[in-house]
Amino acid sequence: MVTTIQQVLILDGAAGYRTVDVRLEGEKIVAIAPFLPPQGTLIDGRNKLLLPGFVNAHTHSSEMWQRGLIAPLPLELWLAELHDTSPTEPEQIYLSALGTAVETLLTGGTTVVDHLAMIPGREDESIEAAVRGYREAGIRAFVGPLIQDQSLETGMPIGQRHTPKTDPQVTAEVLAMMERAIAAHHDPAHGISIMTAPTGMQLCSDALFKGCIELSDRHSLCRHTHLLETKAQQMLALEKYGYSAVEHLKRIGFLGARTSLAHCVWLTDADIPFLADTQSTVVHNPLSNLRLGSGIAPLFKYREAGVNVTFGCDGAASNDSQDMLEAIKIGSILHCPTDFEYRRWITPRDAIQMASLGGVTGLGLGDQLGAIAEGKTADLVLYDLTDLSLLPRTDPIGLLVLGRPNQVVHHAWVNGKTVVADGKMATVDVAHLKQKLSEHSQWDVVSAATPRPRHALHRMEPQYRQVMGLE
Amino acid sequence: MVTTIQQVLILDGAAGYRTVDVRLEGEKIVAIAPFLPPQGTLIDGRNKLLLPGFVNAHTHSSEMWQRGLIAPLPLELWLAELHDTSPTEPEQIYLSALGTAVETLLTGGTTVVDHLAMIPGREDESIEAAVRGYREAGIRAFVGPLIQDQSLETGMPIGQRHTPKTDPQVTAEVLAMMERAIAAHHDPAHGISIMTAPTGMQLCSDALFKGCIELSDRHSLCRHTHLLETKAQQMLALEKYGYSAVEHLKRIGFLGARTSLAHCVWLTDADIPFLADTQSTVVHNPLSNLRLGSGIAPLFKYREAGVNVTFGCDGAASNDSQDMLEAIKIGSILHCPTDFEYRRWITPRDAIQMASLGGVTGLGLGDQLGAIAEGKTADLVLYDLTDLSLLPRTDPIGLLVLGRPNQVVHHAWVNGKTVVADGKMATVDVAHLKQKLSEHSQWDVVSAATPRPRHALHRMEPQYRQVMGLE
Repeated sequence: MVTTIQQVLILDGAAGYRTVDVRLEGEKIVAIAPFLPPQGTLIDGRNKLLLPGFVNAHTHSSEMWQRGLIAPLPLELWLAELHDTSPTEPEQIYLSALGTAVETLLTGGTTVVDHLAMIPGREDESIEAAVRGYREAGIRAFVGPLIQDQSLETGMPIGQRHTPKTDPQVTAEVLAMMERAIAAHHDPAHGISIMTAPTGMQLCSDALFKGCIELSDRHSLCRHTHLLETKAQQMLALEKYGYSAVEHLKRIGFLGARTSLAHCVWLTDADIPFLADTQSTVVHNPLSNLRLGSGIAPLFKYREAGVNVTFGCDGAASNDSQDMLEAIKIGSILHCPTDFEYRRWITPRDAIQMASLGGVTGLGLGDQLGAIAEGKTADLVLYDLTDLSLLPRTDPIGLLVLGRPNQVVHHAWVNGKTVVADGKMATVDVAHLKQKLSEHSQWDVVSAATPRPRHALHRMEPQYRQVMGLE
Repeated sequence: MVTTIQQVLILDGAAGYRTVDVRLEGEKIVAIAPFLPPQGTLIDGRNKLLLPGFVNAHTHSSEMWQRGLIAPLPLELWLAELHDTSPTEPEQIYLSALGTAVETLLTGGTTVVDHLAMIPGREDESIEAAVRGYREAGIRAFVGPLIQDQSLETGMPIGQRHTPKTDPQVTAEVLAMMERAIAAHHDPAHGISIMTAPTGMQLCSDALFKGCIELSDRHSLCRHTHLLETKAQQMLALEKYGYSAVEHLKRIGFLGARTSLAHCVWLTDADIPFLADTQSTVVHNPLSNLRLGSGIAPLFKYREAGVNVTFGCDGAASNDSQDMLEAIKIGSILHCPTDFEYRRWITPRDAIQMASLGGVTGLGLGDQLGAIAEGKTADLVLYDLTDLSLLPRTDPIGLLVLGRPNQVVHHAWVNGKTVVADGKMATVDVAHLKQKLSEHSQWDVVSAATPRPRHALHRMEPQYRQVMGLE
């Protein structure tokens, strides 16, 4: 399978562009030159921009079933609401993985990191369903089952030093489930990787973290976890460890060059060297950090310390979309008001590099992906620059990052395979997907008259308000 | 002209919805009931949501020519760049007004407030061109020529008390130009209103403000201005007046129930009662406040003080889009991290009301627009809820505000007239507009090799860095 993209704009140096022909063969970019002999499938690249694919570096696909649903609440109470409205059928997990893949691909992402919430008691089926969705969509997927061995309530600080109890039997069962998932699904050569992804220090024992480290070492897996998303988690870490959560992850050996850490909002200056020294990656989720009121992550400090930073959409119940271009735009402008020194501000070029090379670097693929060069694997996205949202013609990257592009992904390739063609999904019947999503859901239009049961919220809110000093 | 929208969802009370038929006749909503006899043009409202149109309450249409172009810079230096790359032909002003109207209408806005930057020396032609664009698009437009009688450099603080000089001849000429604009174009009955809109206290003399007040009183016009967008402006106000810019606007009589104030980022707690007491409206422009690093406006304080707050996209060189749903989403979640008390956070319902009723209230039309009720003027938008971006089916308002809807405006009416039908502009040939925007522009792809001249930036940057204490 040979494809030649003709006369397309690619980035050149710090601020320029070049017009080139790009040849894809099998999984690879095999040639780039001002003009190449026309071979294979020819794609007209005029008035188009070719970029390496982005990584949607943190999401929870099954939250798609709850998007638009949960009121503005801080993470700890939002989680209680999430808990009360989660999907219950593996078929739903399959459909939301498919939907997450489609939305990611149609907004420039070619890789998704799914910190996968599963149906309790049906974890193996849930993982199988999500993997099936990603294989079908043809997106590169890192599936990290969202595992924990402590209860939801344990994730809240209580105002004093304490050691949450864990049942070792639960920990062992979770790790056994992970072993089965790895054996059944880990297949990086074909674009599906399992990662070890404990939910976070707020809901996981050290035994679970250590079991995950052992599994990831033995099977060469990436690691992923939530880290200090909220002030409450920062407080909880001090209650549990007596020192910072970051230092704790460093001590137990969880950090590293293939470890990516979602959020990192509440790190102190003293925590940052732990990330830099271990070459860990920060995944910035600007939309959910705002929607949940978590805070604004100190991105400039991470970048100045040499920490690799990339972007995620986060789950669709806390964003509530899977639009990578939106995450990149907000993720790169959100920090300007935090520093008058505008020379530190993230440029559109920086943002593109963070979203592409930054993303794959955190997944151990920085040598194979994230750039347009001969020999690299073809995870590529071709943007149509003639949409009204990208006119008049000025700086293509400026328009793409700082504008609000409307369905401008013209073609996309993952591992050299076409997944989007002529602005449409080549792998997924989107009309059928929409029909299925619609069939499995109903408008929540009577909530005033017959409110949803909110057991978890009502149980947890008094403690939250007390410990956070509200009222 | 009679239209019946059948079986459509509308908002009902604080959290519910109703399914109704809605009849439009002439400019008005004339009936709303569970079922109406089918009359006139029938629109299928099933799986659709009908809302009052939003107000894009602050923009500068001609900046469309510079979107994507200007590097991340604070307002004062960004303005210098803007100055060096402004459009030069009235035809461009017409096209960017048309483009701004189209993007606003296709994202839920039915009214635009254009704080119109004009071509120096061709102000009358510029205003005519913009008005022509808005008439053609059929959007309700408030055009406030962006007037000033002091130089760009005067907008920067200098570190000491001073009184910028103004040439009274310049002030008189600006006001004479406004008189001509009002005479030629002010026609609210047909949807075009001229407003008096001095750029801001940073570039305008008291004489110009007072002239604008006199004009607006005499012709019953709305007033509009930028207010304390940046820290530098806060500093400058103290240098010019010895007290706050807000208090100054109050003293000279510029504030009032038909005065809207763009940004309001750097107000102190003591300033807020001036806004509340005068029933002035704050226009929040979250995207440009982030992109220019201006700051995060204290929206919760405004709302608690009873100040009317609405949303704008701001000009497309500082956003760089005209997507009302984006402005509403970011404008309503940006503030959560500023306050742990989540009971103050803006709900999706609040946001819709701020964007619709809040917007028209600031324009003196709160009694006629901004709600779906019999007798109200029909500025309405019908959203298609079956797009993938709004699935699965949960809470329609939650999806619309917190999601990232993709081209979901199905129909729109302004003054009872159809402006969008079946997802397409009914009034504007968008393909032709795209062609014209493309013809009048070129890709800025060689900026590394042959950088743009940046005279104003190079002239102003040293002073900015010094006065802001950078380096």
